[in-house]
Amino acid sequence: LTAQRDSEFDLIQFIRRSVGPLRPGVAGVIGDDCAVFEGPFARRFVVTTDMMIEGEHFRRDWISPTFLGRKVCRVNLSDLAAMGAKPFACLLNLGLPAECLGSYFENLIRGFLGEAEAVSMSLIGGDLSRSDRLFLAVTAIGYVDSGEPVLRSGARPDDRLMLIGRLGLARRGLDILGSEAPSDFDRIESEDSLRALVDSEETEAALRAHCLPEAHVEPAVWLQERALAHAMIDVSDGLAADVLHLLEESGLSGKIDEEELRSASGAPHLPLDFLLNGGEDYALVFTCSAEQLARIRREYPKAWPPPHAIGRVIAGEPQLFLCRGGKSSPCRPAGFDHFR
Amino acid sequence: LTAQRDSEFDLIQFIRRSVGPLRPGVAGVIGDDCAVFEGPFARRFVVTTDMMIEGEHFRRDWISPTFLGRKVCRVNLSDLAAMGAKPFACLLNLGLPAECLGSYFENLIRGFLGEAEAVSMSLIGGDLSRSDRLFLAVTAIGYVDSGEPVLRSGARPDDRLMLIGRLGLARRGLDILGSEAPSDFDRIESEDSLRALVDSEETEAALRAHCLPEAHVEPAVWLQERALAHAMIDVSDGLAADVLHLLEESGLSGKIDEEELRSASGAPHLPLDFLLNGGEDYALVFTCSAEQLARIRREYPKAWPPPHAIGRVIAGEPQLFLCRGGKSSPCRPAGFDHFR
Repeated sequence: LTAQRDSEFDLIQFIRRSVGPLRPGVAGVIGDDCAVFEGPFARRFVVTTDMMIEGEHFRRDWISPTFLGRKVCRVNLSDLAAMGAKPFACLLNLGLPAECLGSYFENLIRGFLGEAEAVSMSLIGGDLSRSDRLFLAVTAIGYVDSGEPVLRSGARPDDRLMLIGRLGLARRGLDILGSEAPSDFDRIESEDSLRALVDSEETEAALRAHCLPEAHVEPAVWLQERALAHAMIDVSDGLAADVLHLLEESGLSGKIDEEELRSASGAPHLPLDFLLNGGEDYALVFTCSAEQLARIRREYPKAWPPPHAIGRVIAGEPQLFLCRGGKSSPCRPAGFDHFR
Repeated sequence: LTAQRDSEFDLIQFIRRSVGPLRPGVAGVIGDDCAVFEGPFARRFVVTTDMMIEGEHFRRDWISPTFLGRKVCRVNLSDLAAMGAKPFACLLNLGLPAECLGSYFENLIRGFLGEAEAVSMSLIGGDLSRSDRLFLAVTAIGYVDSGEPVLRSGARPDDRLMLIGRLGLARRGLDILGSEAPSDFDRIESEDSLRALVDSEETEAALRAHCLPEAHVEPAVWLQERALAHAMIDVSDGLAADVLHLLEESGLSGKIDEEELRSASGAPHLPLDFLLNGGEDYALVFTCSAEQLARIRREYPKAWPPPHAIGRVIAGEPQLFLCRGGKSSPCRPAGFDHFR
């Protein structure tokens, strides 16, 4: 982070005071031209970057600064999880309108840092600027100690397609915000307040899925460390779109079983389109052999969201089929595209 | 980079086709959730991030897409240089208005990649989105093989303050654009066209300094490899502001000699304020002992911009003085602050 005079300096000082001790492997500190980290610390580093732009990815009247800070952190953690990597360090770029200084800025930073520090990810750099629209761009660095990160391209014919996490709820949450947003929802800064605000468990689950998606870091690292996933991806665009990405990178075909999908989704009451093309689910899809699946069934910790089989990888050109009642039909993704 | 359907997919395909072969140490490829690089490849990695936002950092009618892509790359390279680090890999976030698709986008990417590949820096990831205003956020990763990166905090009492590169010209270039911009300047995509457009060498140098600042990567790496700099910083906010940052991190005082500064600046005809507080100079300031300076004078390659002494580090509270004719007065920086 580059310190400048006066108010930019103050913003940076607030961040400096708010960050906890640096994690092992990070050698440098905020206050230089770059952050420094030790190469030999890890066998492999992985790095990802994701943006959230006001008007494109979020509306300020639909999410509180605390939840926004937490969400942008989790969205990036989900990409690390998709590689089976442990969180290591991150950088935060903020474009800030005048109305987002002061307590808005402080809540945003606290939300972000709370999530980062919960998984031992150090904030090591960033850049701040004024901007007409609020935007956040996070770069997250992860690592693996042994073995290789889990790629999209590793699927094998006859692998099972597995799902960890829930589908469609984030989309349902977005619909609720668009039609019947609880008043003052953008001031809800804690999960307790969210719970107190809404009367139905379903509404709460949907709003929480939209604002505070789960990044399945622990299950993903568990799978990578035991070499129990051939290929993995996180579901951000929509299940169908992201499974197809995995199949394309692996050069294989695949099928999803509608009944298994409904039961695995955690939201069987939602329209099928929400489950297949919801967007922002941040569930985890991975593929594994029958032997790997047997070991997962024996050893996977009971406390975590369970992995469910939803389909199968098959030999053939990259495409995706949906099976119901013994019949199979092509499944074309309708995931979100910022440029369409 | 996350591939999505249709036009976002097309933009990513253009980038994929345009990038050269991956450099050693980068293990992963575009097309997964994260890029992968080898930890043991380097003793230390350094990482930095810098944004350029339309309306805050640039105007689209004052710079061509090629030059903008080149500039945002060089701005980040300058931060790597400030650590004495070799460029390694980078990630590029783009927020794109509708008018910046098509050939604008392609020229921007070509400009960026040309600069990155000239210093063996691989583009390994990024994120694309629509946005009202064009913005670019780059994360750059560098490395050092042996020794430690050069920090701001390493200056010692009696070190010489040294300058590589020119001062004030970028500010002069900005002034020219504000008052007498050559018509169609935003269509100038090459240095040859820039040369042909303007009749005075001084104007050309100023416009070039503003659009295409030099990142002094080779001199910086040369100094780090030989342990010939105690502390280093790049001049982005303004010489006075950035020297003060270095002094603050080192817990020392310093003085700049006005006569030495004028002669070192490469632009002695410009107002002193331009030299001290110009902004966007991307010159390099480092500190070294008399012994280190003697070796630099003997061995520093003649083909590079020469290092010039401009002052001295002295014991005392962090502050900066300007000396002229044997008299010394406090020098308060007036560098740019996005929030002031």
